[in-house]
Amino acid sequence: MRRKQSNPDLITAVAGNGLLDRRTFLRGGAAMAAAMTGYTVTKSAAAEPLVNDPWSLVPGAVTQPYEQRSRFEERVVRTLNNPKGEPRTQNARTPLHLLNGTITPPGQHFVVAQSGAPDIDPERHRIVIHGLVKRPLVFTLDALARYPMVSRMTFIECGGNGAPLFSPQPIQANLQALHGLVSCSEWTGVLLSTLLEETGVDPKAKWLIAEGADTPNLTRSTPLSKGLDDAMIALYQNGERLMPANGYPVRLLLPGWEGNMNIKWLRRIKLTDAPGMTYPETRTYTQLLPDGKAYQFYFVQEVKSFITHPSPGLMMNGAGLYEISGIAYSGDGKIARVMVSADGGKTWAQAALQEPVLSKAFTRFRMPWRWDGGPAVLQSRAWDERGNAQPTRAEFVAHRGELKTVPSVAAFPNQHFNGVTSWAVDGKGEGKHVYA
Amino acid sequence: MRRKQSNPDLITAVAGNGLLDRRTFLRGGAAMAAAMTGYTVTKSAAAEPLVNDPWSLVPGAVTQPYEQRSRFEERVVRTLNNPKGEPRTQNARTPLHLLNGTITPPGQHFVVAQSGAPDIDPERHRIVIHGLVKRPLVFTLDALARYPMVSRMTFIECGGNGAPLFSPQPIQANLQALHGLVSCSEWTGVLLSTLLEETGVDPKAKWLIAEGADTPNLTRSTPLSKGLDDAMIALYQNGERLMPANGYPVRLLLPGWEGNMNIKWLRRIKLTDAPGMTYPETRTYTQLLPDGKAYQFYFVQEVKSFITHPSPGLMMNGAGLYEISGIAYSGDGKIARVMVSADGGKTWAQAALQEPVLSKAFTRFRMPWRWDGGPAVLQSRAWDERGNAQPTRAEFVAHRGELKTVPSVAAFPNQHFNGVTSWAVDGKGEGKHVYA
Repeated sequence: MRRKQSNPDLITAVAGNGLLDRRTFLRGGAAMAAAMTGYTVTKSAAAEPLVNDPWSLVPGAVTQPYEQRSRFEERVVRTLNNPKGEPRTQNARTPLHLLNGTITPPGQHFVVAQSGAPDIDPERHRIVIHGLVKRPLVFTLDALARYPMVSRMTFIECGGNGAPLFSPQPIQANLQALHGLVSCSEWTGVLLSTLLEETGVDPKAKWLIAEGADTPNLTRSTPLSKGLDDAMIALYQNGERLMPANGYPVRLLLPGWEGNMNIKWLRRIKLTDAPGMTYPETRTYTQLLPDGKAYQFYFVQEVKSFITHPSPGLMMNGAGLYEISGIAYSGDGKIARVMVSADGGKTWAQAALQEPVLSKAFTRFRMPWRWDGGPAVLQSRAWDERGNAQPTRAEFVAHRGELKTVPSVAAFPNQHFNGVTSWAVDGKGEGKHVYA
Repeated sequence: MRRKQSNPDLITAVAGNGLLDRRTFLRGGAAMAAAMTGYTVTKSAAAEPLVNDPWSLVPGAVTQPYEQRSRFEERVVRTLNNPKGEPRTQNARTPLHLLNGTITPPGQHFVVAQSGAPDIDPERHRIVIHGLVKRPLVFTLDALARYPMVSRMTFIECGGNGAPLFSPQPIQANLQALHGLVSCSEWTGVLLSTLLEETGVDPKAKWLIAEGADTPNLTRSTPLSKGLDDAMIALYQNGERLMPANGYPVRLLLPGWEGNMNIKWLRRIKLTDAPGMTYPETRTYTQLLPDGKAYQFYFVQEVKSFITHPSPGLMMNGAGLYEISGIAYSGDGKIARVMVSADGGKTWAQAALQEPVLSKAFTRFRMPWRWDGGPAVLQSRAWDERGNAQPTRAEFVAHRGELKTVPSVAAFPNQHFNGVTSWAVDGKGEGKHVYA
């Protein structure tokens, strides 16, 4: 029954190796049913009354003031590179393959922290804006709460996200390990431009230097033009106050720009006529080039996409219909188009984009797929509204270079990988990271 | 300094008692500064280096796999009517006055449960669709995961939300107690119409009866037309699996319709030719009318709004500029307009709506206000894209009636209150629930 022939008039291929017209699912009742029989169980479906499962026979859990997840979801967590908090960087990677939709739960938002999350008392915390301003000011959180606020959905991505793909051989790891340093939230706060109206800006000011209240006082430089554009002093993440490791009680938000610049635990912004040339921006967050030079002060996280379902570790269960779905985003604006391939890039079809498509935010794309049980190579490729195209990996490394040896997943020798990611599916339905 | 005169060219009134043109904040640097001096502190703002607070001098907290909130946020929680889980309804109300933006954190989403949250094993849970279908089917969660999914932001509101405003005298309670049975999330799952394509629909079917796996097997009837429209079998809430008290692992989602019908812990949907006339729909969730009759099967949560900031319990700190902000929503579509008054409805001005404005979802509205330190009565009133207007409380009770005596906040003798809510602000900056 499982691979019964479907009506070809109703299931329309749009590209090679089983990619289907989206309307298949809207008009193809009978055909779908035939393809689906492998995984719906009809036995006893008509019977009444239903048998009660044990959980329906006892009173449920008492509602708590702040609810926690089901015990059956405990495996859905961030992975940590430094779980004991040794004196080096702590990374926590978002389990993108186990989530869905476009929002990242705050407890699952990725983290890169040099010395963990400081335990800041919001009543005592202050934010200073000074340097090349007309009137230096100190703000309490209560003061900030009186200003006009804005909300926006936006992703934050570590500049090192996807760096394992600089390896000359595909590192065998799952999506979380390869691309888990990106997340998306609704952030609410005060535009920095509103506060700079308060302080006034000296015409000599060209940069702002933001500094955190973490132990190393992480410090990054940002062109003032970004500060006067969409930069936000963020106070809320998905409706509630920021998570401690995401900057509680206040962080700088620079929509679409390198994660590390979105200074957490923000304690001051200093306007200057030149960048600070701080350690992260002169050493870590530069993009190396094949000739030994590097881009510096290149901030935008460029257009990128990857397939979350299926992906390595999510075992497929028999041939038949599946939905391929994934995430696309661009630091330059809205996603305009995502193309999906099931044959390693030989043929492509356009995926549906979940509305609303928002600028500098996760956009979920979806594509129906009839897996015939044979080998396939799944890829996605995104374009943004400015016409920027996500490069294939080959195009990317031709320009940016690759490593000579295979690094560990934890090593980040280079930045801003945004090439195509490929998952090979074998005859058993297992996914594997490949270059294709 | 605190109430220094501002430049009237830059701060433009748009309605009585201090409501201001939104552009005030965009062009009014100097004027704003004068009005704001009361709560920005300039002393020592120019000084460098900054003094380190104690939390910057010790290593921070080690990043955890699933992060929890700061200990300083512990007071921001749902309030419970039945914290010991006695054998009666459990309600948990969302602290809307302490959140911001448009998304409700899942741990703060409101709950109404008859017997707590069942401890469902997702591997063993099944969803049955049967009755007047061509092919009754049983779905595992793994089977559902293969279907095309959709995401949408939508609110859910208990039919009894706001019921204390049926009292003939304003009950002294805060926003959470009066209107905390409404929340908004991004829900992701499979459209019910997709699954009904699989089962086929008998032409005699006119209703669907949805049943939960909680101990009382809560059961509600829904017209099939809604099931074929935007009804969703929801699997994810803000990116992760549903919270236990919100239906883990699967709930019915009926965007814009009475909360109780969005059956949690969904175990079956039966198609029928008539409604089930179940206990909740014949007794609890009817809307009483002054003549002793009642609306039955009136499902839409009509257009509504309320001001979250300021609101009772959020003490204002001296005269000057504030932002009035709140939430508007309609079960009939998008919010088209929100008007705000600071003088108890004598004059009104149009609030700014935070984009994107989505159908059947929370829309945050915002309005600048210069509080002169005197008495004020704050109100909001919303219209949706279909032209439905939120009634004043007087209009509402003229049609729907009010109680003869003051009930307790916990008593819900009537349903679907959507009239205007009024907060009086006294000379000390304290807010109070009033009828105006």
